[in-house]
Amino acid sequence: MNPDSLSHIDDANRASMVDVSAKKVTARTATAEAKVHVNEAVAAQFDGKDLVSKKGPVFQTAILAGVMGAKQTSNLIPLCHPLPLDSIKINIEFEGRTATIQCTAKTTGKTGVEMEALTGVNIAALTLYDMCKALDKGITITDLRLLEKAGGKSDYQADPEP
Amino acid sequence: MNPDSLSHIDDANRASMVDVSAKKVTARTATAEAKVHVNEAVAAQFDGKDLVSKKGPVFQTAILAGVMGAKQTSNLIPLCHPLPLDSIKINIEFEGRTATIQCTAKTTGKTGVEMEALTGVNIAALTLYDMCKALDKGITITDLRLLEKAGGKSDYQADPEP
Amino acid sequence: MNPDSLSHIDDANRASMVDVSAKKVTARTATAEAKVHVNEAVAAQFDGKDLVSKKGPVFQTAILAGVMGAKQTSNLIPLCHPLPLDSIKINIEFEGRTATIQCTAKTTGKTGVEMEALTGVNIAALTLYDMCKALDKGITITDLRLLEKAGGKSDYQADPEP
Amino acid sequence: MNPDSLSHIDDANRASMVDVSAKKVTARTATAEAKVHVNEAVAAQFDGKDLVSKKGPVFQTAILAGVMGAKQTSNLIPLCHPLPLDSIKINIEFEGRTATIQCTAKTTGKTGVEMEALTGVNIAALTLYDMCKALDKGITITDLRLLEKAGGKSDYQADPEP
Amino acid sequence: MNPDSLSHIDDANRASMVDVSAKKVTARTATAEAKVHVNEAVAAQFDGKDLVSKKGPVFQTAILAGVMGAKQTSNLIPLCHPLPLDSIKINIEFEGRTATIQCTAKTTGKTGVEMEALTGVNIAALTLYDMCKALDKGITITDLRLLEKAGGKSDYQADPEP
Amino acid sequence: MNPDSLSHIDDANRASMVDVSAKKVTARTATAEAKVHVNEAVAAQFDGKDLVSKKGPVFQTAILAGVMGAKQTSNLIPLCHPLPLDSIKINIEFEGRTATIQCTAKTTGKTGVEMEALTGVNIAALTLYDMCKALDKGITITDLRLLEKAGGKSDYQADPEP
Repeated sequence: MNPDSLSHIDDANRASMVDVSAKKVTARTATAEAKVHVNEAVAAQFDGKDLVSKKGPVFQTAILAGVMGAKQTSNLIPLCHPLPLDSIKINIEFEGRTATIQCTAKTTGKTGVEMEALTGVNIAALTLYDMCKALDKGITITDLRLLEKAGGKSDYQADPEP
Repeated sequence: MNPDSLSHIDDANRASMVDVSAKKVTARTATAEAKVHVNEAVAAQFDGKDLVSKKGPVFQTAILAGVMGAKQTSNLIPLCHPLPLDSIKINIEFEGRTATIQCTAKTTGKTGVEMEALTGVNIAALTLYDMCKALDKGITITDLRLLEKAGGKSDYQADPEP
Repeated sequence: MNPDSLSHIDDANRASMVDVSAKKVTARTATAEAKVHVNEAVAAQFDGKDLVSKKGPVFQTAILAGVMGAKQTSNLIPLCHPLPLDSIKINIEFEGRTATIQCTAKTTGKTGVEMEALTGVNIAALTLYDMCKALDKGITITDLRLLEKAGGKSDYQADPEP
Repeated sequence: MNPDSLSHIDDANRASMVDVSAKKVTARTATAEAKVHVNEAVAAQFDGKDLVSKKGPVFQTAILAGVMGAKQTSNLIPLCHPLPLDSIKINIEFEGRTATIQCTAKTTGKTGVEMEALTGVNIAALTLYDMCKALDKGITITDLRLLEKAGGKSDYQADPEP
Repeated sequence: MNPDSLSHIDDANRASMVDVSAKKVTARTATAEAKVHVNEAVAAQFDGKDLVSKKGPVFQTAILAGVMGAKQTSNLIPLCHPLPLDSIKINIEFEGRTATIQCTAKTTGKTGVEMEALTGVNIAALTLYDMCKALDKGITITDLRLLEKAGGKSDYQADPEP
Repeated sequence: MNPDSLSHIDDANRASMVDVSAKKVTARTATAEAKVHVNEAVAAQFDGKDLVSKKGPVFQTAILAGVMGAKQTSNLIPLCHPLPLDSIKINIEFEGRTATIQCTAKTTGKTGVEMEALTGVNIAALTLYDMCKALDKGITITDLRLLEKAGGKSDYQADPEP
């Protein structure tokens, strides 16, 4: 165990939210990504813009669910701060049998929006599963990760390849 | 496009929840899994039972978040049915630099709990990211998928390897 | 004041949920409707299937919001009972400058789903307003009412004309 | 279709939240209104201040539900921004067989509170329905609209008559 | 430490929901209570039925908040099961400078409603604090406890005096 | 009744949120406390850091529930304002048969965080009840009160003894 990183942990190692009261309000953005792999039966439903399913348009539904899910981030992740959001944008590209979902979140606040971007991608990916599970229960989500963040104490840029 | 699977889609392809009013109430279970890959700095915090972080105990927090997140499934996934839950159980194994998260959900109801199991795993994995992101912003979630379901019209068993 | 209907009201007239513990579990359905009136600028965006707006597809978004809103009914209406839902279906017809929104809710439970159907219509109508307000802030919602209910102590059928 | 208003719509017309990160924080207010029409049996319960029902005081309950509902706006309307609220005020006037509900919302933020005012009125109106439906299932909500907004890029004032 | 009660705890002592899938669906009720002590300035606002405050009627508001809060129990208490509720009833008695709040919850389900009754009392008590804090920041809540439960594996009856 | 405090109450005494639009944004903090009394069987589970129960670690779970509950304050307390939170910290001390729970909340906003601190304590205390009720249904919560607040129009400091 790294003794340095333990220096601020009390003996009982109890959960606690980071205190951001002394941090500056700045513009912050974060982008996250996931890949969703479907079988042939699902891929065959692609009409060039969206996957067509009995439950409705898959990407449209996934995008809306992702935007709404991103707004629930501080209710879902125990130690996340609730903060106003300036923008949540979700994009889905589909090629072969893989949907690539990206979510960019923006705030003007005291703490970053990495978790909002990750939650948006995540709920969109789960919704894609739900919309298509009648045709493929083996849909798998991979490479869910933060691509970049900017605007806080330090920026971050992921490697191009996961 | 597969014409058969389109036979029940109306022209406008609008979203709609599946009507389960005629389905039988049966005992249903589902198990989902994800793998979360961390760097050396995070892995070094493992004390044999949990990852120790400045924000608190990582697996404990992730498990509680996952259980609570699974209960939010029908609020997060647009076309999911709200249903009573008999049990949600989340387990996390850690080996090398990989945490394997499993969630099993149970209901006695008219529809399955795949989405509850997947959501529980998902929110637990995101919480693990949140708890450790000070040490590793490159944490990646992979192999998020359904392992098995039982109790409805048809059972499902995933391949051992993703 | 009607003395009969007051016979069960205590002196302080305090709020209280109806006790449904002795009621039978039966299949129940309810359908509600609203009309949403838009201006020419909005109506001109109709492509035969949906209103096209800068924020996205209007009816698709309104339908998903309505389904998700109907699931929040017992959280929004203070004395409503939380209950499992078998189906929520929202349909939107557009003719001239008027969108007609209908929502049908179904449960197998001890109490009716009128409020779920009304809430679904309502949130869909508000979402339509939100999607189009850049072109028309004067959008007006009228004739929001229950069309019919079935399956409880007594059925109900509204007059054809509001 | 109006080609101008389409200039910013991508081919797939996917849902997306407006990015308000560059907008100024200003004081913003909005007021919305609805009319709720009840039958004689309900109107006879008016004691000069409130409608008295078996479930409790109708206007008191509707006002509280409307205030709480307005706070849920960004959770209910998919593309609404979550924002802090300075005030939500709901007023109900009753005359003849019609209740007129008004809701005024205020924020100091980057985007307007029209949807908060409309949602507050809406949930109050639905609650009025719920409280009185034992006496009148035909209660109808009409003239739900924005009366005025101030404080953003442009103000708005509705016509006196709907 | 009592070795018997530890026999089912795994080494890591991780959180887990009780699995109720094998339990019988029965009618269950629970009643909880709390006492709220206010100062003279608040007590002087009692008009015989309610405390009158600038923010509105105190007990009416507290009762509605308690009912709505009880419906949120499984979202607030991490290991609680979501279950349908047949009834939530809150009563407040005021004598001298003490308000006694009772909440009775009922379900027909596989697990008890003690937490729903306790949460209802709790949120009602907190709301009473919020409504009156302009006159008394020292309001204190005491004797919050379960009074009785019935309908599950074992009944419970509290001692008359806390 | 105190005529002064009634001067702003309208005749119908209807609920209304305080309008904080003219208040200044300042740093605000509040601390609340409660005591939770358990029986011998529960106290015997204390391992020096936490109470060990079949459902998991009691204080860890209660702390997380309290932090998440504090974030729900404006959804639970009808007339509370939603506001961003800079920090929520919960501490639990255990001595003899009594757990003392404290919660400190911080915001940079227009209104105080007393209700957030009180709600955090409250949900933590209820969760402690839920985790231990298999061993003691008579667990009682007392002395729930505000300890101090700072940063608004006026500060507050409770008496040392409740």
